Amino acid sequence: MIQLFTDFGLNGPYVGQLRAAALRGAPEVPVIDLLHDAPTFRPELAAHLLRAVLAEIPAGDVIVAVVDPGVGTERTPLAILADGRWLVGPDNGLFELVLRDAARAETSRIEWRPVRLSVSFHGRDLFVPVAARLARGDRSALVPADPTRLKAMADDLAAVIYVDRYGNAMTGLRIATLPPAVTVVAASRRLERRRTFADGAPGEPFWYVNSLGLVELAVNGGSAAAMLGLRPGDAIGLQA
Amino acid sequence: MIQLFTDFGLNGPYVGQLRAAALRGAPEVPVIDLLHDAPTFRPELAAHLLRAVLAEIPAGDVIVAVVDPGVGTERTPLAILADGRWLVGPDNGLFELVLRDAARAETSRIEWRPVRLSVSFHGRDLFVPVAARLARGDRSALVPADPTRLKAMADDLAAVIYVDRYGNAMTGLRIATLPPAVTVVAASRRLERRRTFADGAPGEPFWYVNSLGLVELAVNGGSAAAMLGLRPGDAIGLQA
Amino acid sequence: MIQLFTDFGLNGPYVGQLRAAALRGAPEVPVIDLLHDAPTFRPELAAHLLRAVLAEIPAGDVIVAVVDPGVGTERTPLAILADGRWLVGPDNGLFELVLRDAARAETSRIEWRPVRLSVSFHGRDLFVPVAARLARGDRSALVPADPTRLKAMADDLAAVIYVDRYGNAMTGLRIATLPPAVTVVAASRRLERRRTFADGAPGEPFWYVNSLGLVELAVNGGSAAAMLGLRPGDAIGLQA
Repeated sequence: MIQLFTDFGLNGPYVGQLRAAALRGAPEVPVIDLLHDAPTFRPELAAHLLRAVLAEIPAGDVIVAVVDPGVGTERTPLAILADGRWLVGPDNGLFELVLRDAARAETSRIEWRPVRLSVSFHGRDLFVPVAARLARGDRSALVPADPTRLKAMADDLAAVIYVDRYGNAMTGLRIATLPPAVTVVAASRRLERRRTFADGAPGEPFWYVNSLGLVELAVNGGSAAAMLGLRPGDAIGLQA
Repeated sequence: MIQLFTDFGLNGPYVGQLRAAALRGAPEVPVIDLLHDAPTFRPELAAHLLRAVLAEIPAGDVIVAVVDPGVGTERTPLAILADGRWLVGPDNGLFELVLRDAARAETSRIEWRPVRLSVSFHGRDLFVPVAARLARGDRSALVPADPTRLKAMADDLAAVIYVDRYGNAMTGLRIATLPPAVTVVAASRRLERRRTFADGAPGEPFWYVNSLGLVELAVNGGSAAAMLGLRPGDAIGLQA
Repeated sequence: MIQLFTDFGLNGPYVGQLRAAALRGAPEVPVIDLLHDAPTFRPELAAHLLRAVLAEIPAGDVIVAVVDPGVGTERTPLAILADGRWLVGPDNGLFELVLRDAARAETSRIEWRPVRLSVSFHGRDLFVPVAARLARGDRSALVPADPTRLKAMADDLAAVIYVDRYGNAMTGLRIATLPPAVTVVAASRRLERRRTFADGAPGEPFWYVNSLGLVELAVNGGSAAAMLGLRPGDAIGLQA
């Protein structure tokens, strides 16, 4: 299965062109639109989201991950094999947390280049064609390489990394690593922890552990992001 | 064919995870995103939309329908066989109108539980895996049950149930049951009936019978919802 | 491969119904959502976008292209074979530029009609079923015809034809036909040409040649459309 994770937006001609490229490169391999509205221009936010969704993806899948404000510049195109899942995309920090978490990781540089490489759409021209080859078991596009390692990237990020249709605000905080007695604070409000949406009083913002294992801010029947004025990148407070 | 009808939004990681779960459960069965922007938190509006789109769906298909503000609470997960089509989702009124309309209906409770059941994403963890089994002809997840019947839900709803990209406002009124000489009123304006968009004068809101057989408010070349200030849930007037 | 190009919006029940119709008509043929947010009510803008994306599509594919404010009126349903690619949709100018560009083009009228033809959703009821037949090699729905030719439509359009998620504003100007020393002007600002996003200074709007070969207005790390106040249909200036 090829899974697409980008900031291109579902609208416009981009996703269709990615899917067509995948289908032409590997006609038998299903393609999933995993997420196309990662925070634009912010690979460091998307890295947390990518790590979280990757935990749901079994070995054998190929993930094309593109949040790439530097497209067309000299950053290296990468293919990483992390615990059996291939990740294909730019070397800009997007894969940092996946690399930290992986029990086994191999990093390669994509050396192959297509006949035509646009300056602005490497997803279509480079990353998806390589993903299609990898999905077919063909590694000939790759040579071993060392990825850039970003030592400064936090393991857990006390910030909003995604706001969904309901207005739930996902953070880069994993429940597995959250200190036990901590209090979550947003927009100067101390939030209670609830088990699920219906356990919150109407109009009361709270936090809960979402289906990806992340701390998420929510309101029963309403929009936490609107109520608390939160957007991707906004910091969340933690008090001991 | 497995068809997905939810309020999750196309954006974010939810639909991709549903599709991946369907594909892993029933690799040979195509999956269709029927609608992912049903009115949030409003199963009673979504019930009218679901009934309308279901009329277009032949026997043999499996529809996963999730508008489920009570996810993680004690409401029962259901599978309904209605005139040959399976519907899978929560017991919260969403299936009420389908049950009323069906010439033959069988209701079952989903007894099977996955190894891991998140509190907030039963679509991914429970409903889609069961739908995949049903699509393969496997009913072992089910036991016979009586659905909750909601006697108070109107057969036809004089309210907006969906606003599309053009600003057309779909109502819960079926042309098949609409009294013949009735006048549709919205935002204190009496609307004329037109056959199709181009039959309306530019800037004149009107109503017509949409492709689902519902009364829909529209404007030729414009947005009826913006012009009349209508959102899902807003009431529409009917005058004899 | 059947590719869908419409102004229906990805939201709502329309695209799912198109895909279901395609799957029922040609179960073995993959379906791609190429673009569903063409400018509404504006076939003359969509015609430029369609021509640009068509350049990426090889012979053998079938494109259903529907931007059709006149649905339900007397405009003719067409099927065009342009350099090996089928295009199916209404005769309202949408195919004008494709016809101009094609080295070989055959135009047909769709004579077949379904048992049930709604007045407002010919995409589902007529165009996709015909596309499915064509994808299977069955031309029996067609009779030879002359398309309406729109002599007034510009070959290149100095206007915004699409704004994407980043706020990049695509124009109907092809680099291949742009006079060499021309200056692009938008919102009274003379824009420099850059090679790619990262070559622009932060906050500086510029133009570059996008992955479809079109002049596109952009800002490094920001929204050109927001900064310049541009929407689809807005004119762009060209100075010698």
